[in-house]
Amino acid sequence: MLVRQSSPSQHTTVTIAGVPVGGPSMVVIAGPCAAESETQLRTVAECLTRLDIRLLRAGVYKPRTSPYSFQGLQDEGLQLLHDIKRAYGLGIVSEVMSVAHLERACEVFDCFQVGSRNMQNFELLKALGQVRKPVLLKRGLAATIEELLGAAEYILAGGNQQVILCERGIRSFDPATRNVLDLGAVALLKRLTHLPVIVDPSHATGRRELVIPAARAAVAVGADGLIVECHPVPQQSVSDAAQALSLDELEQLVRETARVAQAVGRQLPCPVERAA
Amino acid sequence: MLVRQSSPSQHTTVTIAGVPVGGPSMVVIAGPCAAESETQLRTVAECLTRLDIRLLRAGVYKPRTSPYSFQGLQDEGLQLLHDIKRAYGLGIVSEVMSVAHLERACEVFDCFQVGSRNMQNFELLKALGQVRKPVLLKRGLAATIEELLGAAEYILAGGNQQVILCERGIRSFDPATRNVLDLGAVALLKRLTHLPVIVDPSHATGRRELVIPAARAAVAVGADGLIVECHPVPQQSVSDAAQALSLDELEQLVRETARVAQAVGRQLPCPVERAA
Amino acid sequence: MLVRQSSPSQHTTVTIAGVPVGGPSMVVIAGPCAAESETQLRTVAECLTRLDIRLLRAGVYKPRTSPYSFQGLQDEGLQLLHDIKRAYGLGIVSEVMSVAHLERACEVFDCFQVGSRNMQNFELLKALGQVRKPVLLKRGLAATIEELLGAAEYILAGGNQQVILCERGIRSFDPATRNVLDLGAVALLKRLTHLPVIVDPSHATGRRELVIPAARAAVAVGADGLIVECHPVPQQSVSDAAQALSLDELEQLVRETARVAQAVGRQLPCPVERAA
Amino acid sequence: MLVRQSSPSQHTTVTIAGVPVGGPSMVVIAGPCAAESETQLRTVAECLTRLDIRLLRAGVYKPRTSPYSFQGLQDEGLQLLHDIKRAYGLGIVSEVMSVAHLERACEVFDCFQVGSRNMQNFELLKALGQVRKPVLLKRGLAATIEELLGAAEYILAGGNQQVILCERGIRSFDPATRNVLDLGAVALLKRLTHLPVIVDPSHATGRRELVIPAARAAVAVGADGLIVECHPVPQQSVSDAAQALSLDELEQLVRETARVAQAVGRQLPCPVERAA
Repeated sequence: MLVRQSSPSQHTTVTIAGVPVGGPSMVVIAGPCAAESETQLRTVAECLTRLDIRLLRAGVYKPRTSPYSFQGLQDEGLQLLHDIKRAYGLGIVSEVMSVAHLERACEVFDCFQVGSRNMQNFELLKALGQVRKPVLLKRGLAATIEELLGAAEYILAGGNQQVILCERGIRSFDPATRNVLDLGAVALLKRLTHLPVIVDPSHATGRRELVIPAARAAVAVGADGLIVECHPVPQQSVSDAAQALSLDELEQLVRETARVAQAVGRQLPCPVERAA
Repeated sequence: MLVRQSSPSQHTTVTIAGVPVGGPSMVVIAGPCAAESETQLRTVAECLTRLDIRLLRAGVYKPRTSPYSFQGLQDEGLQLLHDIKRAYGLGIVSEVMSVAHLERACEVFDCFQVGSRNMQNFELLKALGQVRKPVLLKRGLAATIEELLGAAEYILAGGNQQVILCERGIRSFDPATRNVLDLGAVALLKRLTHLPVIVDPSHATGRRELVIPAARAAVAVGADGLIVECHPVPQQSVSDAAQALSLDELEQLVRETARVAQAVGRQLPCPVERAA
Repeated sequence: MLVRQSSPSQHTTVTIAGVPVGGPSMVVIAGPCAAESETQLRTVAECLTRLDIRLLRAGVYKPRTSPYSFQGLQDEGLQLLHDIKRAYGLGIVSEVMSVAHLERACEVFDCFQVGSRNMQNFELLKALGQVRKPVLLKRGLAATIEELLGAAEYILAGGNQQVILCERGIRSFDPATRNVLDLGAVALLKRLTHLPVIVDPSHATGRRELVIPAARAAVAVGADGLIVECHPVPQQSVSDAAQALSLDELEQLVRETARVAQAVGRQLPCPVERAA
Repeated sequence: MLVRQSSPSQHTTVTIAGVPVGGPSMVVIAGPCAAESETQLRTVAECLTRLDIRLLRAGVYKPRTSPYSFQGLQDEGLQLLHDIKRAYGLGIVSEVMSVAHLERACEVFDCFQVGSRNMQNFELLKALGQVRKPVLLKRGLAATIEELLGAAEYILAGGNQQVILCERGIRSFDPATRNVLDLGAVALLKRLTHLPVIVDPSHATGRRELVIPAARAAVAVGADGLIVECHPVPQQSVSDAAQALSLDELEQLVRETARVAQAVGRQLPCPVERAA
């Protein structure tokens, strides 16, 4: 399989809008669950810029359990992201749910995210094998490591080598947290595949107060980066309000994970830390 | 929500190629995991006809963990199913994995199956809301009942009321069986929704010797029908060989479930039983 | 291993107070979650007698998540069960949680139940290997089939062959039902072990309205019997109120499962059915 | 409940043989799965002494799935631990499976471990509420956080406040690792209870090569310590051979976790690090 390491030292670096993922530096991707308004995105973008975070996440196509829940701003959201990208020079990481989205989003997104529910949407994976952009592939809610690697293989087999894997919590019996962050899987993946592996501590825990500790743990276990939800006013987030960090908390996350990154021999390009 | 019962007596009957699902009679849908050859399909079709089973399942688009596994006969398989349908007058129930499949398969399939991995492929569900054919929606590997109902709601909200739900086993910690058949969910669904609910005992157990007992239990709990994998020579099945029934075993399943159906006040149109 | 079948036809019958479990007849064990009062037990005992159910379940030692919840009537409950047993001639099936309980309860209980939480309390299992009374061993909340068989082996290895296994639902990700009834496990156990296997549809579903369908399914899959919670006034049950059947519902359960038992070639000694 | 924090700053320190658990320093408890021989224990004890680890784990009563597996050296093991303790001045942390063990082991063990399988052995918990020694309570394989806290409450309610909680991995659907290390639970527990919380990365992953990364993550998330399996010759371990670290690997674990501990503001008394 193409996803497997040929040797323990084989590590692929995937570059999103000039930002390397999988190299010596830790990467942080941050932003709101959903793009909501120009004001929201600008406030977040300014914060990211200040924290030296260069990749923005923000959904415009939202997979929702109910058809009556907010489905994302879609075309309007694409336009907003287009403008933000131009204004702030941020790379855009955002979810696509079908081949149709992919075509539309190609000019705006710098990295196509495949969500948990679509991890085995093989037709979408095959289409992503044909594009020449990075893909962030999230592990399914009950996907085994072998299934995650199999899903990535669909993209690599199509000719696209730029795949980043993402652990975002799996389903368990305990309602205390939204999901269970499986960091053993991250450690294992780093030994099985040469692809970068990042962690989403926001969906993994589903609770704001647990996101920073989970992020520290992810860095300590050896993850190549983090994708985190934040919002100017978390309580007003149209979706996933309970897990979004405030922008102050995002800064705290960057500071705390930077220290852990150093302790495990990784760098986190972080002006906050540099100044400290 | 449109999927919810307005009263305990509200039960929708969905008709596939003239066969009612959700009415007083139990329905059996049977056939191989994948369409493999004309000979294979003819042998199965003759058996179904003899057992008075009028709905054939057979995959031509196969979702597989690895991109290097057999992906189904695709266009060639469509042609085979088209010929079999004409020759034997069977209704065809078969999986679609993308909107593109849907367009191609529309003339051959009498019921579009959405597999577990695509239960929350919302773009596919929205497209299926626009067609005027029955949809068999399988529960995801780790989908809650609320998520299954939400997925069905996407189709109903689009205007297509012909949805059949299918319990096919969920993921658990025990490797002893492939999945865990969740019949409590079936009993619960029959109290929450007016839609028909059928059971797939083949994927739920993954072991040939457990399929018939599981099928009996499904009928006893109140399921409206069964979808079962069988093969002329199970050991030679290109996929899911361990769980395919032989044609003799399929006959035994029909005989045994017919008795249970009668015991719970359901009918199973079964010449074997009638003759006994 | 002593628990394994030497041949597919090897089936052990365990006799509790004269009632065979594992033979041609289905057995029903019924009663309240906890012994609460003489009036409660007499009302239940009279109902059981009328329904020809000869085994009463009623806890006097209750395993509870919180130390501040009702822990059972203990010694007082033992006395109540002793009196009921003498008055109605019922066999008593009740839980023991430690070797100390075992010594006290020996004169009153006809079958020692080991609860899910104690399935791998190996010291208790070893002690039960030394007694000469039947043991009802419930599957742990997340126990594999191999672990359940291993636990039973502890008892058999000690010299006590009178072990009945009980599937009572396993933990899953879906809060819709209390647990997930794993009937595939029952079908599998009947092929792996010669020991009788019964089902607890009350704990498996945790919802009164699902208990009867689940019981029907259990009989259909091939279980040797049922253990069911009932209460004269379910809403007033000190524990597990949501899953206790009323006595009328218990009668309905007996009637409906009797029909299924007949359909699968089993008998249920049931005057209600005989009279019908 | 006594286990709950009265304020976010309430943190209980439990002292085992003079070693504080829950204070500013991280604690490491290490040793073989089972006490096997004097030579084995001496080799381990010398290594621990060198690494400034002052608490030895080593089982003499072993809970095993099969009654035919090695059950621990029992009385002979107690004697071995007694001698090691005297010779090296190490504190002993070891499992008890019944009240009877407790009485025997009281003179040798400095901390009674309750294993996962006995987390809800309430009679054992009640007995441990009466002793005046620390208790290490491991989370059950499928125990919710509320159930773990309820189990601890049994001990506290009995009058023993010296309880340490331990996350050791929960059951999941993926056979890739033995269990799933639930570090979100650790972060949550630190916000719910004043009791110390440690992590067992050995059972959580079940694979030697994942133990050190998992240990780093546990420290980063905020755990108060680690309990780790090691063996002079891991391949020869009578139980859990796949997850035991070599003594060199144990040294590496101490070194790597010490750095992470510093990064999160914790100390790890570690001569290796001090010398570096």
